[in-house]
Amino acid sequence: MSLTLAEKIIQKHIVSAASGFVPGTPVKRGDDIAIRIDQTLTQDATGTMAYLQFETIGVPRVKTEVSVSYVDHNTLQTDFKNHDDHRYLQSVAAKYGLYYSRPGNGVCHQVHIEHFGKPGKTLLGSDSHTPTGGGIGMIAIGAGGIDVAVAMGGGAFHLAMPKIFGVKLTGTLKKGVGAKDIILEVLRRETVKGGVGAIYEYFGEGVESLTVPQRATVTNMGAELGATTSVFPSDATTKKFLESMGRAADWTELKADEGAVYDKIIEINLSELSALAACPNSPDAVKKVAELSQTKVTQVAIGSCTNSSLDDLAAVAAIVKGKHIAPGVEAGIAPGSRTTLLMADKAGILGDLIRAGFRILESACGPCIGMGFAPNSEGVSLRTFNRNFKGRSGTADAGIYLVSPETAAASAITGYITDASTLDYEDPSYTSSGRVSLLDGTSDRLSSEEIRMDAQDEGLLIAPLDPTEAAKVEIVRGPNIKACPPCKSCEDNLKLPVLLKAGNNVSTDDIMPAGTKVLPFRSNIPEISKFTYERLDSEFYNKAAAINMSGCFVIGGENFGQGSSREHAALGPMYLGVRAVITKSFARIHKANLINYGIIPVTFEDPADYDKISDGDTLEITGIFESLKKALPFNICVHTKNGDFNIKGVNDMAERSRNILLAGGLASYTKAGGQ
Amino acid sequence: MSLTLAEKIIQKHIVSAASGFVPGTPVKRGDDIAIRIDQTLTQDATGTMAYLQFETIGVPRVKTEVSVSYVDHNTLQTDFKNHDDHRYLQSVAAKYGLYYSRPGNGVCHQVHIEHFGKPGKTLLGSDSHTPTGGGIGMIAIGAGGIDVAVAMGGGAFHLAMPKIFGVKLTGTLKKGVGAKDIILEVLRRETVKGGVGAIYEYFGEGVESLTVPQRATVTNMGAELGATTSVFPSDATTKKFLESMGRAADWTELKADEGAVYDKIIEINLSELSALAACPNSPDAVKKVAELSQTKVTQVAIGSCTNSSLDDLAAVAAIVKGKHIAPGVEAGIAPGSRTTLLMADKAGILGDLIRAGFRILESACGPCIGMGFAPNSEGVSLRTFNRNFKGRSGTADAGIYLVSPETAAASAITGYITDASTLDYEDPSYTSSGRVSLLDGTSDRLSSEEIRMDAQDEGLLIAPLDPTEAAKVEIVRGPNIKACPPCKSCEDNLKLPVLLKAGNNVSTDDIMPAGTKVLPFRSNIPEISKFTYERLDSEFYNKAAAINMSGCFVIGGENFGQGSSREHAALGPMYLGVRAVITKSFARIHKANLINYGIIPVTFEDPADYDKISDGDTLEITGIFESLKKALPFNICVHTKNGDFNIKGVNDMAERSRNILLAGGLASYTKAGGQ
Repeated sequence: MSLTLAEKIIQKHIVSAASGFVPGTPVKRGDDIAIRIDQTLTQDATGTMAYLQFETIGVPRVKTEVSVSYVDHNTLQTDFKNHDDHRYLQSVAAKYGLYYSRPGNGVCHQVHIEHFGKPGKTLLGSDSHTPTGGGIGMIAIGAGGIDVAVAMGGGAFHLAMPKIFGVKLTGTLKKGVGAKDIILEVLRRETVKGGVGAIYEYFGEGVESLTVPQRATVTNMGAELGATTSVFPSDATTKKFLESMGRAADWTELKADEGAVYDKIIEINLSELSALAACPNSPDAVKKVAELSQTKVTQVAIGSCTNSSLDDLAAVAAIVKGKHIAPGVEAGIAPGSRTTLLMADKAGILGDLIRAGFRILESACGPCIGMGFAPNSEGVSLRTFNRNFKGRSGTADAGIYLVSPETAAASAITGYITDASTLDYEDPSYTSSGRVSLLDGTSDRLSSEEIRMDAQDEGLLIAPLDPTEAAKVEIVRGPNIKACPPCKSCEDNLKLPVLLKAGNNVSTDDIMPAGTKVLPFRSNIPEISKFTYERLDSEFYNKAAAINMSGCFVIGGENFGQGSSREHAALGPMYLGVRAVITKSFARIHKANLINYGIIPVTFEDPADYDKISDGDTLEITGIFESLKKALPFNICVHTKNGDFNIKGVNDMAERSRNILLAGGLASYTKAGGQ
Repeated sequence: MSLTLAEKIIQKHIVSAASGFVPGTPVKRGDDIAIRIDQTLTQDATGTMAYLQFETIGVPRVKTEVSVSYVDHNTLQTDFKNHDDHRYLQSVAAKYGLYYSRPGNGVCHQVHIEHFGKPGKTLLGSDSHTPTGGGIGMIAIGAGGIDVAVAMGGGAFHLAMPKIFGVKLTGTLKKGVGAKDIILEVLRRETVKGGVGAIYEYFGEGVESLTVPQRATVTNMGAELGATTSVFPSDATTKKFLESMGRAADWTELKADEGAVYDKIIEINLSELSALAACPNSPDAVKKVAELSQTKVTQVAIGSCTNSSLDDLAAVAAIVKGKHIAPGVEAGIAPGSRTTLLMADKAGILGDLIRAGFRILESACGPCIGMGFAPNSEGVSLRTFNRNFKGRSGTADAGIYLVSPETAAASAITGYITDASTLDYEDPSYTSSGRVSLLDGTSDRLSSEEIRMDAQDEGLLIAPLDPTEAAKVEIVRGPNIKACPPCKSCEDNLKLPVLLKAGNNVSTDDIMPAGTKVLPFRSNIPEISKFTYERLDSEFYNKAAAINMSGCFVIGGENFGQGSSREHAALGPMYLGVRAVITKSFARIHKANLINYGIIPVTFEDPADYDKISDGDTLEITGIFESLKKALPFNICVHTKNGDFNIKGVNDMAERSRNILLAGGLASYTKAGGQ
């Protein structure tokens, strides 16, 4: 029977599935499956907590094929906390058999695809943009840190079998249009919740015209669809990319079977695409750049895991070479990795960028997560990043537009939002059959030998120690690194106040902000919990503290918890006593994180009930044990000042998830022998 | 009559002096003089307040030959404030005829010497390291922002004629020893207060062996001696440097007259110097690097206005090329300017540094002022910077060692504090007659043509508008930019409590910290005042607020107010009601800043009186008007719980300073027509 590529990779990794599953035939969508994880990655903002959890599991060495601990988020180092975290992560990596990627080495996803990613493998990462690996044919999924910890300990990853949406690409991108415009077009059509419970699989002749970095841009930002992941075939282009990285042996050809059936198919003709921009404040508020051409720009930022490859930098350099950024604009560029930076230096691209007036920011996440380079008050900032949630940039009243590197570069030069195709410039990497990757060794700007030399320079990637040496390592713990507080036990009845009622599309940035003030506390739950829901209600912490964190509920609208994978968006609420979150719908990773930390995710059986509940009402959920054991709906009595009424809450969780809640969270569940 | 070089330049600029002055003969040391200022510079952390003051003067265009507004301090941009400040500064520069140096362009002193500095000119800068310009034969002095504002308006700069100390250099530096070691040797001998009221003038055959960047390192860090400035002759080396920057016409030969008489002479044989380090927590706590070789290093930071030239980077690259920084060390390097960065890129130095594992930080002050890259808890950080005051790095318990780039590079490789001369390496720029500057165009690594092209690329230096265009410019003011609050009027009698008693060598970092938390408030005195004296007494603000900022005194020991030129160290106290600061001695710029903001600087006639006063005592200063008018000592009655006694306060201020205090600060003095 014909299978999609995603199904083929998943099936090779299934370790348990529902009883009706027949290998080689499609898994029923929504069925709980458990898959073996070949590779894991963490970054420093989620990694410290993941490794604190891993340490409690008691496994002497990671059981995956490859696990890597990256440092790319907290690199500003405004006080001792960041560097202390780096040293903790380095010592953990040495002790437990992981690779350690030092700060300055680049953004985890960029470095991972360059150095470790392999077609056909599974990758679990404690970062929502882990699907970047789908650009070379991996099933790469973002998850909470404790899920990654379990995977490092040899445990499977559990998920409901996603739908597989096919994206058929035809044609080739026009000059001035980037891979970013493909994913912006998908977002325009599908919205930020269109991909919940689904994998986007790209196929069709248009795929061939896309370089690996372009594919990785698309799968990376597929996260903004709410999708489980996105995946491209592994073909001759993938082979060339891996060869250029000195990893020819890691290549295998992968594609969907002839006649594979998708749950739906979207068609995009690349030749018809034009430059797009996601307008403030959502990645799916997409317009044509041409419609925005009267908008004056104050800032341009290029980089992030979405668009920071050598090819992205080359596209920018082609546009800005010999010109200069407009006087009213400040422009910064953060190469995605040290390898990229080295190659950009060799190819002369770096010099072109500096000369044009770009500020060269460190190879790290930087401004994408609000770590510096915040725009001015009421500024207009064009960014090649993946998220433009309000306030994420560090400036709440700035307007953030998500665009391709081509659009960003053109706008930096003119001072207005500009479609690059309206400018006259030469791009040596652009051909009628698409972009030629500088990494394929055919360019006269960079020889294959130079590329390989830089790609194989692993000075900042510290390899795992052998077990004897590893056993001698002492973990280094700075004063800000605190053990994860325990979850509360499951209770049969909960009668507690509603302390917050939120709207639709609440992001994990709203639940637990990033940025320079908050991120340094990622290793310290009691401290970071003070920022919980801050952007929704600045008094939430005080309200929770006023009742001694004795318990409460939170109400939300659609797509609650979209965005980043940060489990701190569950840990903060857990620490403050949130026992259940009741919404119209959840984003996947946040829902899993809530379960892992013992908070019950409930959805309204009747979405109209949302309107009947107010902040300050008391809810009573009864018979929780039975609901969880027997997969029954939740019985909820709402006490309002105008009287009481009963509503039903959907309980659509897999058995394992319900058992985790009954056990009082994933840590207790795992300690009690749960798989 | 023979004059020193410093005297010759000063005399050419004197606009008023004491009655006994005969041009061409030495000015009596300590006499009040006023000199014409040819050039000014500001940086963004002091500049916003300087331009807010300048706006109130009412001059339509700066009256200097060249004035430049640099942005190099607040470049992290953790929220809207920094970018708003940049936009304010850019609009002010456009309106009033200044050059504007955009963020990313580099550290003010490095850029200024490359693009604007001229031998024989006077430069006043609102940054204590302005003496960097002395490296090319300028009299370059650091001052408070309001002094710079007055100079931009055409006013003279007033100072007491300094002593001239001669530093006679012989021999040449050995391989592995840097210019930093020269100034560390001077600091070891002279201490951080050895230069108060003096100019250090370098001469002797050893000068010839030093490149301009090396000379600039020495004059830059001469600020740590407490000196008014430091100066080198302008010779053939200076000529070559200016030629390489495309500014041959700006050169003039300058040296001391034969037989010039110095107030004292220090002799240093460069051939006998070895690698030195200033140990925690003072720039004069100097030891030989060889004595520290057992000390493990956790961090290395190279850059700052002291050591970030292309030649410094080349010296580092020579040591690290083909090697890699030790696994336990994180190393960062911030090139001093965009010009330096471009040249380092062209010469292949940047690639060598990246490959060795250096994190490339932005061309800005960065970690030197605690803007990121803070070391780990109890870390050991080697820095090529100029100050190692406790806490300035962002990590209070870290040990900061100030060293040469050579020592920093060697230590980054070995992981221990290491004298580079103990390593085996080739340095193509090192010859038996000293270091050959890559900037002189003789190297095969960088052609003269390439150097000139990069030096003349002024895309990030925005030239002054013509007056017609300038008049149309609207000043852009973000919400954090607040006008400077007015000074309090002078009073004849002050009976107020002592709210703080501090010790010796209090730095302006202690009085008003820099770093990521405080610096963004430099444009907002009410907000920044909350951090006043925070490192000395975290409750100071609350104590001042508890008495409604109704007035108080502060007591200090020797060398009070050393370090940075920040006038916020006077503005904060002024806003909180400090009316007089009584110490054993003052650092020059802080004393001037106190006067400018109406705070009376008093020194104990009998230093033993310091021990008799306690925090909480009440002091009564009477007859202030008469003391100020007639230059009489201050009469102070001390009320302690054990009884009262009288003491005398020295009043050694120049007439103008006393008149400024009588007028209630420099702004009121200037508005009333004072010169």
